[in-house]
Amino acid sequence: MTNQSRPVTLFTGQWADLPIEALASKCARWGYDGLELACWGDHFEVDRALTDPSYCGAVRELLDRHGLGCWAIGAHLVGQAVSDRIDERHRAILPADVWGDGDPIGVSSRAAERMKDTARAAAQLGVSQVNGFTGSPIWHLLYSFPPNDFDAIERAYAEFAQAWSPILDVFDAEGVRFGLEVHPTEIAYDFVTTRKTLSALDSRPAFGINLDPSHFAHQYLDAAEFALEFRDRIYHVHVKDSKKRLDGRRSILGSHLNFGEEARGWDFVSPGHGDVDFEAIIRALNRIGYSGPLSIEWEDSGMEREYGAQDALSFVRRLDFTSSDLAFDAAMHNE
Amino acid sequence: MTNQSRPVTLFTGQWADLPIEALASKCARWGYDGLELACWGDHFEVDRALTDPSYCGAVRELLDRHGLGCWAIGAHLVGQAVSDRIDERHRAILPADVWGDGDPIGVSSRAAERMKDTARAAAQLGVSQVNGFTGSPIWHLLYSFPPNDFDAIERAYAEFAQAWSPILDVFDAEGVRFGLEVHPTEIAYDFVTTRKTLSALDSRPAFGINLDPSHFAHQYLDAAEFALEFRDRIYHVHVKDSKKRLDGRRSILGSHLNFGEEARGWDFVSPGHGDVDFEAIIRALNRIGYSGPLSIEWEDSGMEREYGAQDALSFVRRLDFTSSDLAFDAAMHNE
Amino acid sequence: MTNQSRPVTLFTGQWADLPIEALASKCARWGYDGLELACWGDHFEVDRALTDPSYCGAVRELLDRHGLGCWAIGAHLVGQAVSDRIDERHRAILPADVWGDGDPIGVSSRAAERMKDTARAAAQLGVSQVNGFTGSPIWHLLYSFPPNDFDAIERAYAEFAQAWSPILDVFDAEGVRFGLEVHPTEIAYDFVTTRKTLSALDSRPAFGINLDPSHFAHQYLDAAEFALEFRDRIYHVHVKDSKKRLDGRRSILGSHLNFGEEARGWDFVSPGHGDVDFEAIIRALNRIGYSGPLSIEWEDSGMEREYGAQDALSFVRRLDFTSSDLAFDAAMHNE
Amino acid sequence: MTNQSRPVTLFTGQWADLPIEALASKCARWGYDGLELACWGDHFEVDRALTDPSYCGAVRELLDRHGLGCWAIGAHLVGQAVSDRIDERHRAILPADVWGDGDPIGVSSRAAERMKDTARAAAQLGVSQVNGFTGSPIWHLLYSFPPNDFDAIERAYAEFAQAWSPILDVFDAEGVRFGLEVHPTEIAYDFVTTRKTLSALDSRPAFGINLDPSHFAHQYLDAAEFALEFRDRIYHVHVKDSKKRLDGRRSILGSHLNFGEEARGWDFVSPGHGDVDFEAIIRALNRIGYSGPLSIEWEDSGMEREYGAQDALSFVRRLDFTSSDLAFDAAMHNE
Amino acid sequence: MTNQSRPVTLFTGQWADLPIEALASKCARWGYDGLELACWGDHFEVDRALTDPSYCGAVRELLDRHGLGCWAIGAHLVGQAVSDRIDERHRAILPADVWGDGDPIGVSSRAAERMKDTARAAAQLGVSQVNGFTGSPIWHLLYSFPPNDFDAIERAYAEFAQAWSPILDVFDAEGVRFGLEVHPTEIAYDFVTTRKTLSALDSRPAFGINLDPSHFAHQYLDAAEFALEFRDRIYHVHVKDSKKRLDGRRSILGSHLNFGEEARGWDFVSPGHGDVDFEAIIRALNRIGYSGPLSIEWEDSGMEREYGAQDALSFVRRLDFTSSDLAFDAAMHNE
Amino acid sequence: MTNQSRPVTLFTGQWADLPIEALASKCARWGYDGLELACWGDHFEVDRALTDPSYCGAVRELLDRHGLGCWAIGAHLVGQAVSDRIDERHRAILPADVWGDGDPIGVSSRAAERMKDTARAAAQLGVSQVNGFTGSPIWHLLYSFPPNDFDAIERAYAEFAQAWSPILDVFDAEGVRFGLEVHPTEIAYDFVTTRKTLSALDSRPAFGINLDPSHFAHQYLDAAEFALEFRDRIYHVHVKDSKKRLDGRRSILGSHLNFGEEARGWDFVSPGHGDVDFEAIIRALNRIGYSGPLSIEWEDSGMEREYGAQDALSFVRRLDFTSSDLAFDAAMHNE
Repeated sequence: MTNQSRPVTLFTGQWADLPIEALASKCARWGYDGLELACWGDHFEVDRALTDPSYCGAVRELLDRHGLGCWAIGAHLVGQAVSDRIDERHRAILPADVWGDGDPIGVSSRAAERMKDTARAAAQLGVSQVNGFTGSPIWHLLYSFPPNDFDAIERAYAEFAQAWSPILDVFDAEGVRFGLEVHPTEIAYDFVTTRKTLSALDSRPAFGINLDPSHFAHQYLDAAEFALEFRDRIYHVHVKDSKKRLDGRRSILGSHLNFGEEARGWDFVSPGHGDVDFEAIIRALNRIGYSGPLSIEWEDSGMEREYGAQDALSFVRRLDFTSSDLAFDAAMHNE
Repeated sequence: MTNQSRPVTLFTGQWADLPIEALASKCARWGYDGLELACWGDHFEVDRALTDPSYCGAVRELLDRHGLGCWAIGAHLVGQAVSDRIDERHRAILPADVWGDGDPIGVSSRAAERMKDTARAAAQLGVSQVNGFTGSPIWHLLYSFPPNDFDAIERAYAEFAQAWSPILDVFDAEGVRFGLEVHPTEIAYDFVTTRKTLSALDSRPAFGINLDPSHFAHQYLDAAEFALEFRDRIYHVHVKDSKKRLDGRRSILGSHLNFGEEARGWDFVSPGHGDVDFEAIIRALNRIGYSGPLSIEWEDSGMEREYGAQDALSFVRRLDFTSSDLAFDAAMHNE
Repeated sequence: MTNQSRPVTLFTGQWADLPIEALASKCARWGYDGLELACWGDHFEVDRALTDPSYCGAVRELLDRHGLGCWAIGAHLVGQAVSDRIDERHRAILPADVWGDGDPIGVSSRAAERMKDTARAAAQLGVSQVNGFTGSPIWHLLYSFPPNDFDAIERAYAEFAQAWSPILDVFDAEGVRFGLEVHPTEIAYDFVTTRKTLSALDSRPAFGINLDPSHFAHQYLDAAEFALEFRDRIYHVHVKDSKKRLDGRRSILGSHLNFGEEARGWDFVSPGHGDVDFEAIIRALNRIGYSGPLSIEWEDSGMEREYGAQDALSFVRRLDFTSSDLAFDAAMHNE
Repeated sequence: MTNQSRPVTLFTGQWADLPIEALASKCARWGYDGLELACWGDHFEVDRALTDPSYCGAVRELLDRHGLGCWAIGAHLVGQAVSDRIDERHRAILPADVWGDGDPIGVSSRAAERMKDTARAAAQLGVSQVNGFTGSPIWHLLYSFPPNDFDAIERAYAEFAQAWSPILDVFDAEGVRFGLEVHPTEIAYDFVTTRKTLSALDSRPAFGINLDPSHFAHQYLDAAEFALEFRDRIYHVHVKDSKKRLDGRRSILGSHLNFGEEARGWDFVSPGHGDVDFEAIIRALNRIGYSGPLSIEWEDSGMEREYGAQDALSFVRRLDFTSSDLAFDAAMHNE
Repeated sequence: MTNQSRPVTLFTGQWADLPIEALASKCARWGYDGLELACWGDHFEVDRALTDPSYCGAVRELLDRHGLGCWAIGAHLVGQAVSDRIDERHRAILPADVWGDGDPIGVSSRAAERMKDTARAAAQLGVSQVNGFTGSPIWHLLYSFPPNDFDAIERAYAEFAQAWSPILDVFDAEGVRFGLEVHPTEIAYDFVTTRKTLSALDSRPAFGINLDPSHFAHQYLDAAEFALEFRDRIYHVHVKDSKKRLDGRRSILGSHLNFGEEARGWDFVSPGHGDVDFEAIIRALNRIGYSGPLSIEWEDSGMEREYGAQDALSFVRRLDFTSSDLAFDAAMHNE
Repeated sequence: MTNQSRPVTLFTGQWADLPIEALASKCARWGYDGLELACWGDHFEVDRALTDPSYCGAVRELLDRHGLGCWAIGAHLVGQAVSDRIDERHRAILPADVWGDGDPIGVSSRAAERMKDTARAAAQLGVSQVNGFTGSPIWHLLYSFPPNDFDAIERAYAEFAQAWSPILDVFDAEGVRFGLEVHPTEIAYDFVTTRKTLSALDSRPAFGINLDPSHFAHQYLDAAEFALEFRDRIYHVHVKDSKKRLDGRRSILGSHLNFGEEARGWDFVSPGHGDVDFEAIIRALNRIGYSGPLSIEWEDSGMEREYGAQDALSFVRRLDFTSSDLAFDAAMHNE
């Protein structure tokens, strides 16, 4: 009963505590088709890819050995530093040489260079899709009090475009595309800001979207409609879920509580355990002709991780289907 | 058919473009019982109150002349600067002498002094309630990515308490209480953060709440339950409303759009035109014995302001009622 | 703008602490059309009506003096004792001579006689409608554990019919009808039990319904559909409201808490302040041709009583309307 | 408390059994600002307007005498016959000379000529807005079984445009605009069909919309969003309401039952008594700058007509408000 | 874990592009219990059944060879022409000899004869259930504008009965029953019209219902309640699903768009992927004692057909269960 | 894909018509981990356990033979008689020697002694958990009419505590805990009454809760929140489901109809077929660290019992999962 053409991969970002060898072995055993390698831990090391000519081959060999494919890599952490307001939190997620002395301008500049290298490394690995974050110079202005200068908000999209255009030039040169995971704290996190972001980049094809519905559900956004509106920019898809737990005492804004805290108004959950209408998304992906990976990004503070990775895979296998190529009611006609 | 004991006032903050004389005249004509004077425009000038011995008397005289009372003043703008991360936006809302050279530490320090003066000025005016904002050193960390250091979050409540305790000492000395308008961008904006804020201050009576339900509705919080949980800290009540306009394409987070923009997911509206369940709030206020003002804070980008102020007053007059002092079914007993 | 033919009355049962003279004066001043007199307090005294030939005339004279009509009386408390399992609670609501020594059989028997007298007294007063309760021999078996003997449940309807048939014979003889207020704790409290009750009485016309929607809302019943299903038995209508306050912690069953307690799952509220869809009821009453009183039974533990009685009257005046006698779109035809 | 600039009129179509003199007198007494005259009964007689030079003056004089304005006329019945499939039902609604011998081609052709005359007559009366229906050659193909030929569906919009273009040429010549009341049975009844209809006419300004939300609610359409999408084509607005009465046994499709039947799934009701979110519509009208009449089309099988016309007027008076011309939070700025 | 007594069949109507041999082979491999053969394509040829004495045996043999049963046949297309208003669309779905010259009276008359033959052919095949459509002379009058003559609507049911009675006489003679698939465009499409249709036929047993819930969901009808109301007329059951996709811009009426179009308000989907509450239907079927086939009619413009047929079968296998024959809580009694 | 540490058992109470040997054999075959033995039928005989020294060993041997564990026993029927108002219904569920002459005081007293013996027998069997009911002296006062004496209600909790304290002393002595199945007709049936019950017993650890969510759903209570509030008293968990079937004509109160009747407003159903949000419960159990059995109490009047027991087991196997022991986003940090 399989007509599923889309490979199911695991995004390795939340498993970077495990060596890639160990993780690949597990994923193969569980039945995954491939991995979306994170550019941290030892999963995919951008600097080694550019300096060690054998590195990418060895990575491919390792994956092949486990029967796993790789269609995309994830460069969220470094990408975040390109357009973000840098603070202490970035130190914890950046490679030491990107952080350097922590001076914001230098950090962002080194992060931008590393993103160019990431495109080059992806090309080396034979992967044409890099997913990631961009950061945002205006996220802290989310709620307009003290009242925002909304001209400054508009200018921020232009500044963002200025920062990313040279990076995207390298992507173009390497035949690689960037997929922003539309997400709070990024330059684009909803329909409005995605429209502005794409427009600021003149909708250049190098810049598209890694669609992750878990960031839409708690904003009351319809991820399937998003896929339809931005149909030519859906370059990659994450399968991740979130669940609202509102009871009149828990805020949708999160209460400055860590994920998994009992009093939070929403939380990430294993795919199929939350609010995301994945069937609507599959139908939208069918409609727009998306045939790339369905990449499980697994985060659920309330579930054991390895059980969850298997539960999620089985969920996606049940979920996915392709569209029809017959006209409706055609068989009822007498000719 | 009137059993309403609670005075209905207008918060003058959104009308500071009008001289207080003109505004008082309008409000009196519309039927308001009094004004909650904002500490900006010429409505209530803290520095003059402390330097000009006749000023407070003149303000009272002006109000008396229009048959208006005053039970509270609003010091939102200066309060915001005490614990906020200072940026260019504060310059636009602060008195020039509080902003000074704009150096953040100096600004916050001068704002703290001005808040002490505000308590003193309120006492001069014969008002025992100052409403306002506090700002927040951690608001920009609302969404935990890059991942927050949650110990630092907890420490922020302690730092907040440290900043406000000397201010509250002056409030105590003057017999005046502060009412934080629980609100996004402030140290407390929901149940969880209010609990932590009150706890950081050891629930000292000088610090309570100005309950404004418009900030709860778009967070999916129940303002009536809030009143019940924090029943001994509800010092003042704003009547203000907001309305969600979610359609799967508009984010509850606001899209970095100004209030009133068509693509926003929620907006402020004239009381009774939005999502707030005011009847539940009145019943909660009756239950906790609140007998202070119902103060209309009027903001609605889609309605003419003077029409709205009258519409809101008429709404509150229809809405308000007091509770029973009879036992249920008592009349059915035969003794 | 008045086309309202239905009189609006106040049921006096919850006001029996006030002498009828005082209450009538208030109601007249508030604008009521009449009173539904309760058979307790000094409002309508059944024993005096039968023994003092001038009593009913004096009652009418009192009402006339205030310009008030009377179309029905309420005999809830005595009626309750006819088919109920008698316990200490009945002592508090029964006349001393009906309670007597409190022996259950005697109490029920004396209550039955008093109900016959009530019909006689109503006729004396020139009123053809007596509203009331019946009690229920099986209410305590509401939840079937230990498992009920359901044959015994069915038999209880027959026993009920046996107890009430002689009473209804007197009603018939007097030209008076009984209206059971369908209500938990009574033989009929929903659609199913009303069907069984009417059937047990062979749908004799002497026994009908005093429709009170406040008892339907918390059972999730549609009072307008009830009016349509039992259209020939809707003899009288109470305007009373109730409101569910469910939050996952409050039970719809009431928690053995008194009305008005904060933790209850539902409560009675002033008409228009609750869950009842009164417009649907008015449309149903129009459809079935009900032209009798809309009688406000006012109970709301959270609202001052006299304010509430006026608020309710004004609500009913806004609410009520009569139906059309024109065919739809008739004016569009060219003949 | 009035800032209402939009006149409130009554559409006279459902009152054509009354002479215009009688109706105008009633409406004036009730407080209406004007009438939207129907082109049937004696309300506005197109043929007399073109043949009797004094007719339009007399109509204006009659209206003036009652202090009533007229900003639009309604030509629904004749318009319906232009593009409809003609059957016996049209005979009942058409003037005898338009119906003639009932041959469909002739009927439609005479109806088209009468619509041109209607534009001429409107101009005579000094009215630049004619509202009405168009009929639809494809309405009967609503549900595609036997399967529709969807090319034929598309062609129908072109045929419609062909039929109406000569009529609209006359409208243009007379400086009058047509407003289609988007409505089931018409060429446009929802968003999709309105887009196609306007497109078939190359969005020529002569053809716009008479927005009537009562036809949207039972289709689950958002009339406020409709006003925003077609903002430059909202030429006139009807205030009319409808209410769904679904209970799992009543079909949204209407069951071939007449309006007012108890078993219908939805029905028209007096404005404010149904599902229409009129506040959202007012806000949308403010946003798009609509300042024309709010014209009450009154239909409610369950309410007495004259009561209803007054109830509706009072509803609209409470409802309507104009928008703000102040920037949000402007008064909080210190400059 | 199987207690399922109801066979699961596939209705072959949407697969008539495949030869029955090929389809039977697929269905057997997928695990179906049988086929509901459509009377078009080469699936079940009514004319051959009556003229070729070996035909029915050969059909049975083919089915037997694949281990498939047959409990019903589907004659939707010809049945549609009996009471429909004939137009060009019928030509595409009718056998050439039934269409003939396309003159409506002749078409309907030949269709009626073919339906009699269908009963005879079913009997030959040893099948006692023929499902199908009836068409409707009044479907085009769905929305009453121009206003319907409702007497004419009522007469249409009588005319329908007149047309079908002779057909049903043959059904009776052959020991075969007809099951109308209650469906828009048919004489019965909801509760009201089914009541009228059955009543017009004096509820003769030859005429019952093929219950297909996919046609109920988008009408907001409860198919389980339908099964209970018409419990003695549920002769066959289709398992088919539909899904509403309403967003305020898509009409529930379908917008004259083909199935599968993005802007439609609802669409057919593979069973279990839509709005139908199949568990409620199974419970209703258990309650009324239905033990016939659950026949999957598979239509989903957004899913590959063969995947879908298997997905649907697996859905029904998980879904179906039989009812209990034990009394509740019996095991708790001590006797 | 198993990380499930919680055993899945079947509560045998509804299967007491089967000998334990036969039931154990079935459950083992179906894959259950163990049984929660009911103290009726021949499943677990308290009197034999105390008089026959070999009995408990034989029971364990029987279970071992089928590979089944036992972590709790169920003593609902006798427990019910301890604090209930005794009537004829108890005779049907009590052992003859507990019922005796049926005199209420004697029945309750013997039931109390039998509960002490049950603790002793459980200890013999090596089981430390006894689940059961308590009965309630005030259940019949559920709806306060005639008006309750609420002081008497409060006293009933004290009387309850007095009755159960000596029983719980024996539980303590035996190292066994009691788990009240919170349930209508018991002293505790919701949050409020559970708080009062635990408080009356000074929260002594011998008395906890057997959490059964099927009794919460129809009361509109959130069983997951209940688990969190009473986290240290959740001693055992039943997996049982119920479903509301409200349609405006069916009362949530049950209409004095037996379970399974068509007109009831709610009913018990096989787990996963109803309203209970089991995922929320699993997450709550993970949060509070509950690692005991998930015991299926199977009741569904509309499903064949043996099919259901297997369906339920498979449901729980899919449902259950354990929680994570990793910090959120830990893998994203660079140290």
